[in-house]
Amino acid sequence: MEKKFAERIRRAQELVANQEWGGLVVGTGPELAYFINSWTSSHERLTALVISASSAVVIAPITDVAQLEREVGSDVEIRSFRDGQDPYAMVAELVGRGQIGLGSSLSAPHVLGIQRAVAGETSLLPAGLFQVKEDEEIAFLREAAEAIDAVHAQVPALLRAGRTEREIADELHELILKEHVEVDFVIVGSGPNGADPHHSFSDRVLQPGDPVVIDLGGRMPSGYRSDCTRTHVVPGGNPPAEFERAYEAVHKAYRAAIDAVRPGIRAEELDAVAREIIESYGLGEYFTHRLGHGIGMSTHEEPYLLSGNEQEIARNMAFSIEPGVYVPGEWGVRIEDIVVVADEAIRLNLQPTKR
Amino acid sequence: MEKKFAERIRRAQELVANQEWGGLVVGTGPELAYFINSWTSSHERLTALVISASSAVVIAPITDVAQLEREVGSDVEIRSFRDGQDPYAMVAELVGRGQIGLGSSLSAPHVLGIQRAVAGETSLLPAGLFQVKEDEEIAFLREAAEAIDAVHAQVPALLRAGRTEREIADELHELILKEHVEVDFVIVGSGPNGADPHHSFSDRVLQPGDPVVIDLGGRMPSGYRSDCTRTHVVPGGNPPAEFERAYEAVHKAYRAAIDAVRPGIRAEELDAVAREIIESYGLGEYFTHRLGHGIGMSTHEEPYLLSGNEQEIARNMAFSIEPGVYVPGEWGVRIEDIVVVADEAIRLNLQPTKR
Repeated sequence: MEKKFAERIRRAQELVANQEWGGLVVGTGPELAYFINSWTSSHERLTALVISASSAVVIAPITDVAQLEREVGSDVEIRSFRDGQDPYAMVAELVGRGQIGLGSSLSAPHVLGIQRAVAGETSLLPAGLFQVKEDEEIAFLREAAEAIDAVHAQVPALLRAGRTEREIADELHELILKEHVEVDFVIVGSGPNGADPHHSFSDRVLQPGDPVVIDLGGRMPSGYRSDCTRTHVVPGGNPPAEFERAYEAVHKAYRAAIDAVRPGIRAEELDAVAREIIESYGLGEYFTHRLGHGIGMSTHEEPYLLSGNEQEIARNMAFSIEPGVYVPGEWGVRIEDIVVVADEAIRLNLQPTKR
Repeated sequence: MEKKFAERIRRAQELVANQEWGGLVVGTGPELAYFINSWTSSHERLTALVISASSAVVIAPITDVAQLEREVGSDVEIRSFRDGQDPYAMVAELVGRGQIGLGSSLSAPHVLGIQRAVAGETSLLPAGLFQVKEDEEIAFLREAAEAIDAVHAQVPALLRAGRTEREIADELHELILKEHVEVDFVIVGSGPNGADPHHSFSDRVLQPGDPVVIDLGGRMPSGYRSDCTRTHVVPGGNPPAEFERAYEAVHKAYRAAIDAVRPGIRAEELDAVAREIIESYGLGEYFTHRLGHGIGMSTHEEPYLLSGNEQEIARNMAFSIEPGVYVPGEWGVRIEDIVVVADEAIRLNLQPTKR
């Protein structure tokens, strides 16, 4: 394995030691990939990396060990179990008596099994384990942003009255695959469908002057994700005046939130900066979601920018800034970029946002 | 929604009442589909069906409510929350003070959030909630078995020396899609690759006389899954004598386990019936996994047939019987059918198993 993986494990061990935790139990998915470069998938049998102050051991079913050894080589110790043996007792043997951090991909049977076996209290993994990105990770996120920007640059040419959301989504699917290894999601929310923030696409036919929310994301060869939204208007007609006003509100909120980003500001403060602007337009009730989310090998991860999250933003965190306004039955507006924190926000997505 | 969904919720409520539990929290995936016919996907925001003795309410992020309402209609109450509101407090309001059963798809953040909010102890969902199949479910599993049998029937024609596992897997992928809506997995484990029970396929070229493990599964339009394994020998040569002996052992174990199925036998007893036969051949250490697993809208679900599981097998349960022998670096053997429990086992897969 590359040196960076050993370094990440060392950093986690240091954190366990400093905070006097018992250990960390990292499940499969992006979190395991972060530490040992394996995308093996867990299931009803536990696969987990157990990190204590002094050890790092993968616990895995014997049926999965061959694949795992091929992936991680000899750098990480693997302990296998057979069906009928208790993998949670193996976790308990490895961790100390303090607090045990649980990876967010662990499912209820594994969480309850670990809780039964270990002496310490359980919590989620320590905040900050994945949030502050390394230089290479930021480079990967920048590549991802460039990839999705290249797709967004082609969107205006696709939006013509008479076409369906599905036709456009199909083309966007192909365009994303040209720049990424996998499509994560394609949202083409025209007219009233734009008011559903998690709409994907439908057979609705685009009308002249329809507002259309286009939110796209994919996975890069590095494993890192893109996520970017723009809201367009179908040529040949004018959108409702209320839409233009909402667009102005969302755009101002987006600009103000990006301008407010700096190390030390709290996550909830960023959310409030954007929300207050949208509220000042009388549209607060239509901004139905948080301002943004962290991004890395997961599309959504901490830090979440929302009311009540007092966590301080730190240098080299990466997250989305995506205010929106959704008027049910009418239309939606959202503008979303990924930013990285330096002295101020560095925007990774660079497609135009002005109407 | 069809009547069956209301009936399933009613049955779950009865179970909660009879066992004096506080309630059940069902996450997304097959378990939610079972109760309300929705395949909505949860993520870092909680989506869950909360069942108490007197109520059944879906808790969902406001961003996902539009899609959910389209899927479930007006039969189930939906309560939405916004980012920054606490969905776990909403769970706590709905359940009583007794034990709270947690769906197996709930991830660690949701499990810990629910545990923080509710008064009662948490456990997994009550055994038996999904295990005893309705007549319609058995019909769906039978259709799935027929679908995968139709694929297995074509396997012998594909296995020719000089072809790669990948070429064969690609053809099997297409054949599965002709009979299913989705491919769940394709295992083509030739020669030494057959010794890895979770091998998928590789560029290894088949040799005359190679044993080849073929394990295939897919999803039907009904949502129910197929899962069936046969072990073949590539024409043009003879397999090792040890393989023939292991095949005999696995085949006898498979037959004996199926013959032993009856209501009232314990899951661990079925595992033992098969294991003792394979041990009597001196091959016990190479039977590295449990005898089988339940199947429904999940490919792997309870009941698991393994040592230590004292659960009694009941009428209308459906599970796999799949003994195997895996000699590292040499070859593997596995035979797998899905059975349903009546007075005795009813095999759903009917492809030949005799060599």
